[in-house]
Amino acid sequence: MRRVLATAVAALLSTAAMAQGLNVREIGSFHVGGRTATIEGLAPREIVFSPGAPPLRINPNGDFQVEQMYVQYTRLENPRARFPLLLWHGGGLTGVTWETTPDGRAGWQMFFLRQGHDVYVSDAVERGRSGWARFPEVFAGEPVFRTLGEGWGLFRIGPQDGWNIDPARRVAFADQKFPVAAWNQFGRQSVPRWVTTDPQVQRAYDAYVQQTCPCVVMVHSQGGNFGFTAALNAPDKIRAIIAIEPSGAPPAGADAAKLKGMPHLVVWGDNMDQPFWQRIRPNIERWQSAIREAGGTADTLDLPAAGLRGNSHMLMMDTNSDQVAQLVQGWMAKQGLMR
Amino acid sequence: MRRVLATAVAALLSTAAMAQGLNVREIGSFHVGGRTATIEGLAPREIVFSPGAPPLRINPNGDFQVEQMYVQYTRLENPRARFPLLLWHGGGLTGVTWETTPDGRAGWQMFFLRQGHDVYVSDAVERGRSGWARFPEVFAGEPVFRTLGEGWGLFRIGPQDGWNIDPARRVAFADQKFPVAAWNQFGRQSVPRWVTTDPQVQRAYDAYVQQTCPCVVMVHSQGGNFGFTAALNAPDKIRAIIAIEPSGAPPAGADAAKLKGMPHLVVWGDNMDQPFWQRIRPNIERWQSAIREAGGTADTLDLPAAGLRGNSHMLMMDTNSDQVAQLVQGWMAKQGLMR
Repeated sequence: MRRVLATAVAALLSTAAMAQGLNVREIGSFHVGGRTATIEGLAPREIVFSPGAPPLRINPNGDFQVEQMYVQYTRLENPRARFPLLLWHGGGLTGVTWETTPDGRAGWQMFFLRQGHDVYVSDAVERGRSGWARFPEVFAGEPVFRTLGEGWGLFRIGPQDGWNIDPARRVAFADQKFPVAAWNQFGRQSVPRWVTTDPQVQRAYDAYVQQTCPCVVMVHSQGGNFGFTAALNAPDKIRAIIAIEPSGAPPAGADAAKLKGMPHLVVWGDNMDQPFWQRIRPNIERWQSAIREAGGTADTLDLPAAGLRGNSHMLMMDTNSDQVAQLVQGWMAKQGLMR
Repeated sequence: MRRVLATAVAALLSTAAMAQGLNVREIGSFHVGGRTATIEGLAPREIVFSPGAPPLRINPNGDFQVEQMYVQYTRLENPRARFPLLLWHGGGLTGVTWETTPDGRAGWQMFFLRQGHDVYVSDAVERGRSGWARFPEVFAGEPVFRTLGEGWGLFRIGPQDGWNIDPARRVAFADQKFPVAAWNQFGRQSVPRWVTTDPQVQRAYDAYVQQTCPCVVMVHSQGGNFGFTAALNAPDKIRAIIAIEPSGAPPAGADAAKLKGMPHLVVWGDNMDQPFWQRIRPNIERWQSAIREAGGTADTLDLPAAGLRGNSHMLMMDTNSDQVAQLVQGWMAKQGLMR
C-alpha cells in the first residue's frame, strides 16, 4: 500500500508541476556601476510638474548618479542550469529585445526560463531603465535616433530600398522569418543612444559581471563586443559566451589565451551577403580563430547551413525563434552548463 | 482508504505549493499607444557605432514611432485577485519604483504577486523602456534632471537643507522609515523627464487601460492625476484606484459622479507639514469629497493616524513597506476585489 500511495503522490505532484507554470523564487532588479557627477553653473528655472500642483523653483545644478546600469532578474525555485544566464541587448534597443516578440509570442527570456535558467535582463548604460544624463555636460555629443526605415535594411528584413512607410509597399527578403507585419510594433522598442559612451557601458557591464557571476553571457549585435571584452576582463567569472550576430570583436592582439576555458558560440542568420554584414563577419571569425588557436572552443551556428532559412538580425524575434533557441540550448547542454 | 489517500495527497500538494515559489503562467511585455512621426530637414552624418565596425552614413530624418508606453506583466497560474493590478510610477522615475527596494528587499511588485495579483508595471511615455523622441522636434522644451538633493526634501526624507553630498552629514527626519543609507542607490533609479508631455502620457495610459482592463490601478505621486483622469475616461474599465501620495487631482468641475462605482483609496505618509505637501493634499481631499458627495467611496489611509510613523513619499521602499502594503491589501479585500 505504501508503494501505491507513494507512486500515486509522485504522479500527482508531477502532474501538478506540469500543469503549473514557472516555479519562480524571486523577480527583482538592481542598478549597478556608475558614479556621482556634479554639475555647476547652469541657470535656475520655475516649473509646474503636475497640473494643479504649485510651481517649483528648480536648480539644475547639483549632484547626480550617472552611468549606472539596470538589471532585472527572474530566479527559479529549482534551476536546472548551473549558472545564471545574462542577456545583453544590441544598439538602439533595451532588454525588451529578449521579452515578448513584437507579434506577441513568448521571447527568449521565457524560453530560457522554461529550460531552467535563472535569467537576467539588463539595459545598457543610457538606455531604458538605466536612465541617461545631461549632455554635453556628462555624455559627449548628442544622441542618435534610429528611423523605422534604417533598421529594415541594417537588420536584413529586406533590401535597404525595400523600406516604405506604407506597410503594403515594403519589400522583404524571400523566406523572411521576422514577423514583418509587426515591424512598427518593433519600432516602439527603439530608444536613443550615444555613440560616445562605450567606455562607460563597458565599465558597467564589468561591474555587473563582478557582482553577479559566475554566469553565462548571451550578447546580441552591439552587445557582442561588450561581452567579448567583459570575458577578457573576467575570464574567471564568465563560463561561456553566446554571441547572436555580434557586430564587433576585440582588436588584433587581444589575449585570446585567457579564454581557452570559456567556450564561445557565434550564431548567424540568413541573407548575410549584404555589404555591411560582409564587412562585420570576418572580424568575428578572426576572433574565433584566435580563441581556437589558443586551444579554446569557438563554435559557429550558421542557421542557413543548419537548414534554417530566412532568419533576420533580430532572430530572437523571428517566427522560428523557439527553434533557434533550442539549438542554442542544445549547445549549452553539450558544454556541460546544465545540471 | 480512499479518503486517507486523498487527504495525504492534498496535504502533500499543499506543502509542495508552499515550499515552491510563485506559480507564474507568463512574464511578458508590450508597448502600447503612440504614433508615427516624420522628421525632415536635418543634415546627414557619418558615425562608427561599434569599435571595429565600418562607419555608417546616418540620415537623421525619417519616420519614427514616438509616444508609446512600455508595459511588463507577470501573470500567475492561479490568481486570487479578480482583476490585474496596474502599478503606475511617479515623476522622474520608472516602473522600477515597484521592484526591489534600493536596500535590496522585495518591493511591492513581489508583495502583490505573492498576494495573488497578476501585476503589470509600466514606464510612462518618455521614461525608461518607453523610449524618448527627438526634441524640440517631437517633445516641446527640454528634459529636466532631478538632483540627489532635490529628492531628499521633496520626498520628505529630511528637511531640504538636510541634504549633503557626504552621507555622514545628511539630516533625516526622526523615525525616518526610508532606508537612508541606500539614498544614492535610489538615485540610480532617476530618469530625465519632460514637463510638457502630460497629454501624450495621458493618451498612452488611456490606450493601456482600454487594451488591458478591467483592472485595479495603483498610482504614485505624479501618476496620481494620470490615474484619476484615466478613471474619468474609462469608468467602466477601472474597478478601483489606489493613490499613493498623489501629487495632483482633476480640475474643479470634473464629473466625480462617473466614479461612484469605483472605490478610491488615498495613502499618505508622515511629516506632511512640509510646505509643498501642505499645498498638495487639500487638492486631493477636495477630489475625494467630490467622489463621496456623488455617492462613491473615497477612503484615506493616513499612516501616522494608523500608528505608523516616519513614512516617506517613497513609502513602497520604506523599511515597513510590507506592513503598509498589507493595509492596502486589506482594503482591496474589503472592496471585494479578491476571489
